[in-house]
Amino acid sequence: MRSPTPYARDCPTRQILDRIGDRWTVLVIGALADGPQRFTELRARIDGVSQKMLTQTLRALERDGLAARTVYAEVPPRVEYELTELGRSLLEPLGALIDWTLAHHPAVLDARAAFDAPPAVAAPTP
Amino acid sequence: MRSPTPYARDCPTRQILDRIGDRWTVLVIGALADGPQRFTELRARIDGVSQKMLTQTLRALERDGLAARTVYAEVPPRVEYELTELGRSLLEPLGALIDWTLAHHPAVLDARAAFDAPPAVAAPTP
Repeated sequence: MRSPTPYARDCPTRQILDRIGDRWTVLVIGALADGPQRFTELRARIDGVSQKMLTQTLRALERDGLAARTVYAEVPPRVEYELTELGRSLLEPLGALIDWTLAHHPAVLDARAAFDAPPAVAAPTP
Repeated sequence: MRSPTPYARDCPTRQILDRIGDRWTVLVIGALADGPQRFTELRARIDGVSQKMLTQTLRALERDGLAARTVYAEVPPRVEYELTELGRSLLEPLGALIDWTLAHHPAVLDARAAFDAPPAVAAPTP
């Protein structure tokens, strides 16, 4: 049996890598670092996430064993999401990714501006 | 001015986070960890990447200042891609993400199987 590697097309690690690198996954897991939260709280924290995307992301996290959903028998029922132990093990690598973005986004934006700039006109040779 | 945060919809960090978490970006940067490589070498290493996706990913990496493209004046011209210093600074966080996937994919697959399983039939009460 070959060792698992995301460099192989059919290895499940590739698809899992895709899931955990997803923008909404990274933001939801980061938000859940602070403890259990309701859907509406998460939606307020993650500016711009649609109800549909947040629902899909939470469901995928639950299916992957990264988050747990608890329904409290109140009226109306209260539903909270929290990280599982497996989900918490992602806090460090995903936090490092967010930290990289916060530290280096000016360099990325500068690189983009240079890349997109029209080519400099060469000075005429005398 | 607000501090940059990917939790804000219009902050450029959100879109950059999206770019660097992209499956092909992670795999290309990981492959380039070994030094400069040609397009065909990268394509062979990243099983299943289409010519179009690899072209787009490399161009985005170049635009973001993460990879550099060098054309050697040979016949036919040789084109190599390599990480910039900024790109190399991503090796650690993205490597941690790949390592997490390699370490924890069995747990994720187990969680999925449990989530997708039909509900157990309750034993009849005697």
